[in-house]
Amino acid sequence: MSTMNLTLLTDFYELTMMQGYFKTQNTEKVVFDAFYRKNPCDGGYAIAAGLDQVIDYIKNLRFSKEDIAYLRSLNTFDEDFLNYLADFRFSGDIYAIPEGTVVFPREPLVKVVAPIMEAQLVETAILTIINHQSLIATKASRVVCAAKGDGIMEFGLRRAQGPDAGVYGARAAMIGGCIGTSNVLAGQLFDVPVKGTHAHSWIMSFPDEYTAFKTYANMYPDACCLLVDTYDTLKSGVPNAIRVFEEMRNAGIPLKNYGIRLDSGDLAYMSKQARKLLDAAGFDDAYISASSDLDEYLIESLKAQGCKITSWGVGTNMITSRDCPAFGGVYKLAAVEDKETGEFIPKIKLSENTEKITNPGNKTIYRIYSKTTGKIRADLICLADETFDESKDMIIFDPQETWKKTKVRANTYTLRELLVPVFKNGECVYDSPSVMKIRDYSKKELDTIWDETKRFANPQHVYVDLSDKLYKIKSDLLEKMSLEALEY
Amino acid sequence: MSTMNLTLLTDFYELTMMQGYFKTQNTEKVVFDAFYRKNPCDGGYAIAAGLDQVIDYIKNLRFSKEDIAYLRSLNTFDEDFLNYLADFRFSGDIYAIPEGTVVFPREPLVKVVAPIMEAQLVETAILTIINHQSLIATKASRVVCAAKGDGIMEFGLRRAQGPDAGVYGARAAMIGGCIGTSNVLAGQLFDVPVKGTHAHSWIMSFPDEYTAFKTYANMYPDACCLLVDTYDTLKSGVPNAIRVFEEMRNAGIPLKNYGIRLDSGDLAYMSKQARKLLDAAGFDDAYISASSDLDEYLIESLKAQGCKITSWGVGTNMITSRDCPAFGGVYKLAAVEDKETGEFIPKIKLSENTEKITNPGNKTIYRIYSKTTGKIRADLICLADETFDESKDMIIFDPQETWKKTKVRANTYTLRELLVPVFKNGECVYDSPSVMKIRDYSKKELDTIWDETKRFANPQHVYVDLSDKLYKIKSDLLEKMSLEALEY
Repeated sequence: MSTMNLTLLTDFYELTMMQGYFKTQNTEKVVFDAFYRKNPCDGGYAIAAGLDQVIDYIKNLRFSKEDIAYLRSLNTFDEDFLNYLADFRFSGDIYAIPEGTVVFPREPLVKVVAPIMEAQLVETAILTIINHQSLIATKASRVVCAAKGDGIMEFGLRRAQGPDAGVYGARAAMIGGCIGTSNVLAGQLFDVPVKGTHAHSWIMSFPDEYTAFKTYANMYPDACCLLVDTYDTLKSGVPNAIRVFEEMRNAGIPLKNYGIRLDSGDLAYMSKQARKLLDAAGFDDAYISASSDLDEYLIESLKAQGCKITSWGVGTNMITSRDCPAFGGVYKLAAVEDKETGEFIPKIKLSENTEKITNPGNKTIYRIYSKTTGKIRADLICLADETFDESKDMIIFDPQETWKKTKVRANTYTLRELLVPVFKNGECVYDSPSVMKIRDYSKKELDTIWDETKRFANPQHVYVDLSDKLYKIKSDLLEKMSLEALEY
Repeated sequence: MSTMNLTLLTDFYELTMMQGYFKTQNTEKVVFDAFYRKNPCDGGYAIAAGLDQVIDYIKNLRFSKEDIAYLRSLNTFDEDFLNYLADFRFSGDIYAIPEGTVVFPREPLVKVVAPIMEAQLVETAILTIINHQSLIATKASRVVCAAKGDGIMEFGLRRAQGPDAGVYGARAAMIGGCIGTSNVLAGQLFDVPVKGTHAHSWIMSFPDEYTAFKTYANMYPDACCLLVDTYDTLKSGVPNAIRVFEEMRNAGIPLKNYGIRLDSGDLAYMSKQARKLLDAAGFDDAYISASSDLDEYLIESLKAQGCKITSWGVGTNMITSRDCPAFGGVYKLAAVEDKETGEFIPKIKLSENTEKITNPGNKTIYRIYSKTTGKIRADLICLADETFDESKDMIIFDPQETWKKTKVRANTYTLRELLVPVFKNGECVYDSPSVMKIRDYSKKELDTIWDETKRFANPQHVYVDLSDKLYKIKSDLLEKMSLEALEY
């Protein structure tokens, strides 16, 4: 993705609509929100990710001669529109929630304010990138939570949905808290730790398991992790590993950062038995790592069973977010500028499903933290120009069940605006931190929610409320539209 | 992916093992098989896809100066090995089953015959590419089967797992039988039809629905598909669409390839009501298309309910293969060359799970077709140098339940070798057909299996048997290893 021209990475209807706006001379500025409706895996939160790749995409957005020629070949676009595309640059504003932030449903993760032609074109790529990376960062965060401090390695490249899914999935998994990835290209592109040892084929290519282990240990004494399940884990694999460790010890080779990897069988039982064998031979500092169709639920269960694994390699289920492989982010029109006043007129999308009705207007989000605990009290979606005073009481209420009110007392809370400017008039005004810095930040973000919100089964949801002003605008629009509907 | 250097798209352990082989001067040729163990979505078959991207990857496989510098920075690799990598070219042979072919579990989709260092390096990328595209081609094929002749449009880019997943997923979906994609970049790269009309935002950006429809119809009279569910499908959307169609008819604009799209609500009910309204207004040739969380199961159900939809846009559930988002292909060592004799010594990987025991040896696959029906009788995995005579009876048997024997009578069957040469001594010897040609071929491939194998619930499985010779080699190896295991 880093060098490929992604300008045509868009749905065809974005271009037919663009030409429509071009022909009808619709140059009005609009506001689009990219948000999602439901946390992945029925969880209590998500982790925003992908912004740095959105920035690259917007910066490099231009139609090459080949792109124009291709579009011309489709016999759908007129020359005046194609000429417009040839000079196309994104000229709008983009706001976003920084990568690694804990986020909740209905919060705009990205807000685009631009002439409608531009805002429409970028819809698809923004969604593709944010949906994918936020999904994997969230899944990884769940897996990391389940491991309760043990290191999680991202091992999924071979099962990823294509090369990008492997590379940017590894990036997102690091943001979600993994300690490293097996993906060398991701290591190179994002300066994150790469790790790995050997496969069953290494063992099988030697006359016997002991020779394979011995050769590996001679070559990599500082990172000696031996895969013990090629033939028989407890009768052959672990004893041969111990034999090699003993020879290293006898030869005076310092044993540090060494251990075994289990890749099949009953991991709870095998790890306990392997631990006994290793301890009995005096290798109680040898670690036991495991891989094999792991996910957050299995890791939680294995730890509850008292397994002796302290390092985890997680592949397929994390890199595809197997039980929930799509984030479901959408991109909805929220406001259209009134050319005369320059004000944004709120727009709403109706639906028979109340949850699917959009929040209208040019908005922002404030996060309300408790001063005493540092935890999130609630998030407040409001109009972009609203201000709040931390020295005053604040009454917030559930936007669906409006009788659910909470008073946040003056001086007990602090506010933080979540959306930050990323592009202004087409110029990038945001410096993305390194992936490892985003990872550190995200770790702190997780401290702002309670364990009850992080648990997998029936998590406590964090309140995302609307400001009085926004709630009134939304109610009035709904009322107006339902009266209009009676006239059909 | 088309211009990005993918040489480092590999797991770190491939490189540490490579250095191990380099240091131990292991230059033996080996055979690796890429195969899968279970059809996606509990189906009866899969569609092979991704070979053309594997070919690109192998052709472009070379470590740039930046790659070497990056690997050096990891403090794991010696200069002599890095020098070797700087001149690295793939020098081996690759065989593969052509894209679009119907395939079954345990059949090598790709076979790599190369010095072990080279064969090991390419493992990860081959699996990433083949796993992803075969998964989506299979899913698309199932969706296409469910639609029983109706056109399926691929609409999933925004929910794909990153840009590649969207682009190569669209490619695979076309191979699986879709009639087009919304993904413009996929259209450009693979010369496949791109399609699409407008979104809810188009409607919302106009003062009213009628004006939005009218403007669109004026601009695109030849591909006029109106999205009717922004406000109220049956009271507002369909009547406004009919008003616009009437105006076109009255103005003498030829109405062809026109219709409406439903994107929410009860699609069975809505489509029946919309059909009545359209027919009553004399627009019985207007089509009704639908999108909204569709997959093969929902399409089958809607058709069983007598819905009036004849064109389907399928997004999230197809582009992610939502109920089965990983293909599970593996890459296993099958044989090692004896340097003295030049013969391949079969290798086997044991497992407590019988299904996971690999098929040893340098193999190929013959497909046995019935002369009378043209359908597949069975597939036969055998050694690469075995030959069979169609004028003789053939007895095949189930490799797990060996008493299940079938006699295929002389002259009632034809044989076809599935694996074809793709690289010979590092040179590509295979021309990939265009995606639309692969699509045509795959459509014919589906005619070689019975509907009972294509159905979703409890499909009839096609037999994949072993030749006598291969079965004996496998049994002997298992026997030998289990005797050795008694000595642990």
